[in-house]
Amino acid sequence: IETKLPKVGTTIFTVMSQLALEHKAVNLGQGFPDFEPPQALRDALARAMDEGRNQYAPMHGTAGLREQIALKTERLYGRKVDVDREITVTSGATEALFAAMAAVVRAGDEVIVFDPAYDSYEPAIELQGARAVHIPLTVSAFSIDWQRVRDAITPKTRMILVNSPHNPSGAVLSAGDLDELAAIVRDTAIVVLSDEVYEHIVYDGAQHQSVLRHPELAERSFVISSFGKTYHCTGWKVGYAIAPPALSAEFRKVHQYLTFCTFHPAQVAFAEFMASCPEHYLELPAFYQAKRDRFRALLAPSRLKLLDVPGGYFQLVDYSAIRDEDDVAFSRWLVEQGGVAGIPLTPFCETAPGTRLLRLCFAKSDATMEAGAERLCRL
Amino acid sequence: IETKLPKVGTTIFTVMSQLALEHKAVNLGQGFPDFEPPQALRDALARAMDEGRNQYAPMHGTAGLREQIALKTERLYGRKVDVDREITVTSGATEALFAAMAAVVRAGDEVIVFDPAYDSYEPAIELQGARAVHIPLTVSAFSIDWQRVRDAITPKTRMILVNSPHNPSGAVLSAGDLDELAAIVRDTAIVVLSDEVYEHIVYDGAQHQSVLRHPELAERSFVISSFGKTYHCTGWKVGYAIAPPALSAEFRKVHQYLTFCTFHPAQVAFAEFMASCPEHYLELPAFYQAKRDRFRALLAPSRLKLLDVPGGYFQLVDYSAIRDEDDVAFSRWLVEQGGVAGIPLTPFCETAPGTRLLRLCFAKSDATMEAGAERLCRL
Ligand SMILES: CSCCC(=O)C(=O)O
Ligand SMILES: CSCCC(=O)C(=O)O
Repeated sequence: IETKLPKVGTTIFTVMSQLALEHKAVNLGQGFPDFEPPQALRDALARAMDEGRNQYAPMHGTAGLREQIALKTERLYGRKVDVDREITVTSGATEALFAAMAAVVRAGDEVIVFDPAYDSYEPAIELQGARAVHIPLTVSAFSIDWQRVRDAITPKTRMILVNSPHNPSGAVLSAGDLDELAAIVRDTAIVVLSDEVYEHIVYDGAQHQSVLRHPELAERSFVISSFGKTYHCTGWKVGYAIAPPALSAEFRKVHQYLTFCTFHPAQVAFAEFMASCPEHYLELPAFYQAKRDRFRALLAPSRLKLLDVPGGYFQLVDYSAIRDEDDVAFSRWLVEQGGVAGIPLTPFCETAPGTRLLRLCFAKSDATMEAGAERLCRL
Repeated sequence: IETKLPKVGTTIFTVMSQLALEHKAVNLGQGFPDFEPPQALRDALARAMDEGRNQYAPMHGTAGLREQIALKTERLYGRKVDVDREITVTSGATEALFAAMAAVVRAGDEVIVFDPAYDSYEPAIELQGARAVHIPLTVSAFSIDWQRVRDAITPKTRMILVNSPHNPSGAVLSAGDLDELAAIVRDTAIVVLSDEVYEHIVYDGAQHQSVLRHPELAERSFVISSFGKTYHCTGWKVGYAIAPPALSAEFRKVHQYLTFCTFHPAQVAFAEFMASCPEHYLELPAFYQAKRDRFRALLAPSRLKLLDVPGGYFQLVDYSAIRDEDDVAFSRWLVEQGGVAGIPLTPFCETAPGTRLLRLCFAKSDATMEAGAERLCRL
């Protein structure tokens, strides 16, 4: 059988998590918290099962959860979204990203992505018969050079995919970036796909510049988020997409034949928890900033150079003072010899970036961070 | 925005469930039980959350659940499957069906489906840029005319999609059907996709003829099943695909970018429940046969003609003695005026079948069946 996805192997996240297990390494690779979702949220899920919410949820999500998403969106981004026509709950943000592409991208189209790019983007584009056009982010700040975007637009450009806070760098888009993007797509048929799964994890007092804050962009965008990242339960696989009615209608046509609907008791639980504990996500920046700062302090004595982290789960480190080899080789050496699993950036880039950077996840308990840092300081 | 799926509206299941709510009708439409999954299963899920199984599951499913699936497959169908390389857990059977098609069907290919066909098949085929070739099942028995299949094969035929027990008719494939299918695909590159979500619900002492019983077919097939149908929790959205290693490898490439992995605590719970209660699925035929027989007895005084039900959740009824109108019109009249929601067959068929048949779900409590039957007997 000839493969439809010749470039795809097993994702780097699975590869590194397996190596971490084999070598009993501290796993700072795959992005997931090693602490638990709130007890009240788990209790709400158990209660939903006991209350008989075990059959199909509505295809586009329970009304209660969509209402809470709408409340949050208005509160944080000042945008009123139509609960019935603009929100669709999905089986994780990964499904939402795929469905958005399958909904509007056709064979022969081009989709602009920025390198390093989360590894699901390109295969999802290729499965539509379309082509990913890779634009590298600027070297040290991981920001977008908008002139390069303007130069890359062709009549075939169907979608521009942005990701803020950015995985793996943590870079965030500014209000000015949104204006640049809006100017580029104005008077075109280009759709924006905005991956905002780390929307609540932005540091140093900055505000997340959601595409939903920008009325002009919001009218032509899919905005994707993840309950897994927000409520420390990446294994629950619930996410959502917000898009104007015409885009949501196309999105739902795909979603209803991709998964039809999403695990019902979790939807009931998230709705209840968001209603009773709306401050949870407001506390996330301080919660994760404390982790970031602690991790950086622990790594200060090491020979790793720490890049700035404006948002998200990840610390990028420059390891060139330790070993002069490419990042894939270094990450293997580190998990086997150094006892720490991290994620190289090359699998996020079409062309080898030639950088000496590794991604380390600090969405971890103090004990895990300390164990990892101790080993990293010994290098 | 121009749609990629011009033929797709909201699924008939959602439409009828919404109408049922609006008109306070007895909902015998969408196929889901109105009773609960086993208490021990729900308890196991709650425990899995408390034991910290809340982050990403392995991409292809937990080892424990894949082991239980392998045990079941050997026990029931005499086939040993490789736990690591041949089983992939998915976010419902719907995801598994989509992923199997996306894995091997290419633009320009043809996929043979049998009418009436479950409504997700065709859009999933179209999203690959491929074409569904519809072959009607025989009129009264809903069986396959294999000569028509032979005649429909072209160099573009990439896949044949079979479904046994069949939705909506309940018809089951025989061992002879599997031999016919094997003879047709022998020495071709055609892949079989076998939707067996009702595998445990076969009546009157018959055995489910899984494609997995047929070594030659199993070597070129995706076999799909659903925990939701088996354990009365359609809203938990866990299913799986079994396929030989080469097909599974392609399947997983798609799955990992479609949803990446599936709700983790449910996987732990199913594994535990299957290990501690392996007889559950052996009791399903008697459990559902009692429902089927009860429902038929309740409907005996009505003017509906009851078709035979060899398997599955559904009773097909011929309503021509009551009203002479097409099935979509009749199902609307019935939910609005008769107070019962059922599913017409036309949305399952490319061409209007011109039949006077409606699908009624008997995966219901006695009270629901009685309430529905009482109204149906009044027509
Ligand atoms: C879906 S597994 C990868 C999780 C993640 O978002 C990451 O590590 O970047
Ligand atoms: C996915 S909703 C439809 C459920 C079902 O399998 C049916 O009613 O046929």
